[in-house]
Amino acid sequence: MSSVEDLFDKLNADLAPGQEKRLNFDDIELKGGNLPGEPVDFSHGDVDAFEPVPGALENFNYGFKEIGGTQAYTVYRGREDILEDVAAKLADYSSTSIDAENELIITPGTQGALFLAVGATITRGDKVAIIEPDYYANRKLVHFFQGELYPVQLDYLSHEDKAGIDLDGLEASFKEGVSTFIFSNPNNPSGVLYSREEITKIGELVREYDVNVIVDELYSRQLFDNKTYTHLASLDIVPKENIVTIIGPSKTESLSGFRLGVAYGSKAIIDRMEQLQAIVSLRASGYSQIVLKNWFSEPDGWMAERIKAHQDIRDILLTLFRDAGFEVRTTEAGSYIFPKITDLSIDCDNFVKVLKKQAKVTVTPGTQFGPQFTDCIRLNFSQDKEKAVDAVKRIIKVAGYYKNGK
Amino acid sequence: MSSVEDLFDKLNADLAPGQEKRLNFDDIELKGGNLPGEPVDFSHGDVDAFEPVPGALENFNYGFKEIGGTQAYTVYRGREDILEDVAAKLADYSSTSIDAENELIITPGTQGALFLAVGATITRGDKVAIIEPDYYANRKLVHFFQGELYPVQLDYLSHEDKAGIDLDGLEASFKEGVSTFIFSNPNNPSGVLYSREEITKIGELVREYDVNVIVDELYSRQLFDNKTYTHLASLDIVPKENIVTIIGPSKTESLSGFRLGVAYGSKAIIDRMEQLQAIVSLRASGYSQIVLKNWFSEPDGWMAERIKAHQDIRDILLTLFRDAGFEVRTTEAGSYIFPKITDLSIDCDNFVKVLKKQAKVTVTPGTQFGPQFTDCIRLNFSQDKEKAVDAVKRIIKVAGYYKNGK
Repeated sequence: MSSVEDLFDKLNADLAPGQEKRLNFDDIELKGGNLPGEPVDFSHGDVDAFEPVPGALENFNYGFKEIGGTQAYTVYRGREDILEDVAAKLADYSSTSIDAENELIITPGTQGALFLAVGATITRGDKVAIIEPDYYANRKLVHFFQGELYPVQLDYLSHEDKAGIDLDGLEASFKEGVSTFIFSNPNNPSGVLYSREEITKIGELVREYDVNVIVDELYSRQLFDNKTYTHLASLDIVPKENIVTIIGPSKTESLSGFRLGVAYGSKAIIDRMEQLQAIVSLRASGYSQIVLKNWFSEPDGWMAERIKAHQDIRDILLTLFRDAGFEVRTTEAGSYIFPKITDLSIDCDNFVKVLKKQAKVTVTPGTQFGPQFTDCIRLNFSQDKEKAVDAVKRIIKVAGYYKNGK
Repeated sequence: MSSVEDLFDKLNADLAPGQEKRLNFDDIELKGGNLPGEPVDFSHGDVDAFEPVPGALENFNYGFKEIGGTQAYTVYRGREDILEDVAAKLADYSSTSIDAENELIITPGTQGALFLAVGATITRGDKVAIIEPDYYANRKLVHFFQGELYPVQLDYLSHEDKAGIDLDGLEASFKEGVSTFIFSNPNNPSGVLYSREEITKIGELVREYDVNVIVDELYSRQLFDNKTYTHLASLDIVPKENIVTIIGPSKTESLSGFRLGVAYGSKAIIDRMEQLQAIVSLRASGYSQIVLKNWFSEPDGWMAERIKAHQDIRDILLTLFRDAGFEVRTTEAGSYIFPKITDLSIDCDNFVKVLKKQAKVTVTPGTQFGPQFTDCIRLNFSQDKEKAVDAVKRIIKVAGYYKNGK
């Protein structure tokens, strides 16, 4: 096996969200029957149930028809007037300052921003701290760039007033020479928020050990129960050259189909991200870029209504899982729940496969978020409420088929 | 300097096409005056002068409104029905077979396809043959993935019936252990076509030495003077597992603003490309993907008319450069010309800067295509004819200001 094949063995995307259509089921012995019901894909939000921000398509059409060539071909980091608009809105949102010309880049999706940020900060042999559980791509990106992983545990089930990061473990990794720390807030997949005290302590450690930090705030606008959010960039603790914040309109705003994300922060890192974008994909779709003008400019009440609807679905699904005896932490922000489906006779990767086959329900296995999460599944509950409720009932029923001892 | 900064030093994109807006002119002593005239950006085609394929925007709108969620979120390699449509059209175009499920991936632009193909075939220390001159990203990608460059010369100025590849040099590089060969046909920047004999010999060498080959056919539809084109994939010489072909609708079809490209060929490489796409950008914009249905389905006569209009502009610009004493090979396919602007007192990087400042003309310096091309500039002549003619006259005038001895 060549070394490039060896490298890709660590990236296996077969069970990554969105890829389930390409699964192979041949090796599992099925128990129980098939369950009727509408297919539900919890691997991502349903933008038919929660539609894109109003005006997005109209603005795309405006960019194509009225602006034309200069909208199709922008500087790699994005069209200047759009950078200015986004910089002003994000600076206001995250209580920081952003120089539109030097400290901001538009990317093809928030995934694109994350890839460029990691590629612009680490190279072979660099030590990188990540959280477990956390977004599956964080770990895969470190593998791809041949960095060395330093996992830090998140005890997300034991607390109500904080995320539960092992700060001693984080500091220990920094002492061992970690040069970059990557984490999502709210945490993906558990939906918990880091407390102000946790974020402050992270900032102090990052400063003390001169570590670069990449914070993924993709779902930070969708806060439940009037929770407050602490932007790491808003604290004056971390030197600006050490931090990159990533965010985009793909989740709560349902604009994923346009592939738009942004990163802001360190001028030096953003510069390298643009150089990398020049050989990765040139730029985010020119016509799509203008759709960012609709972001953080939603109609009055639109965001509050969207959050309320999601909180309602969250509450019902949490109750269903808890009534069935499955432990799950209450989502504080974003659209993910991460229940523990314990006492099964099959592992979660195979449970995900039988769910798809027997219940037409797609979920993401916990192992995507850390190798030890073999009894968890992640659901994105940004779905049609009735269908989601029925699908979760089917999940619980299928779990019964595969209960230990059955 | 950290090793990641060191790595990025080799990627410098300041003079890359499209980035000229971010240039710094402070260090050049200007000669002659400023020239009036409309700004022309020869670094890429003007999609206002040559508009996108009819129906593209309408199809995008259809995807958003009528298909919705399943169009926004596709499998990473692209939506199944679109893969099938594109596979059938490309198989017909390039006289080969393409299995839509396993041998094709849709990417964010042809740049995205190239990045994924290189990332899926080479890793640190691998030996990679490239052509000089050739598309600037080929060399940069090899640097980024920390491969070792084996440049092979293209004597593009000395022939009329072939591209002029140094086949002995190519074989010598294969003997030294090159594992991947990357080239564009038609050659970017010179616009020359590889002859059937050259492509056949390349195929034989690739097979003999078991090398992977990535061939970029982005501009292959725009053939002038009734030239014939030889698709490497159409020959039975190269084992299918060794070849990836890259193409997309960004150039002749003017659909760059949608960021669409494709790669087809080796199942194993396409599989790895999809795994890489999962962490790079997830997928090409879902709504954009449907625009591929307009590709290779242009209205009758549309392509012939477009080619005729480009050939007309090509002929006028070639005459202007030749009358001014500058050597340039006749473009056989695509929209690039690559004249040698000899006998200047400044190097071509600075000539590009003064052109921008004094003549409002943007061109790409030859050094982007190989370090030795210090007296060449590349122009994309897919422009408004009158403006392009006037701009080339200004280029010639500014060249006069900086003539040696002046």
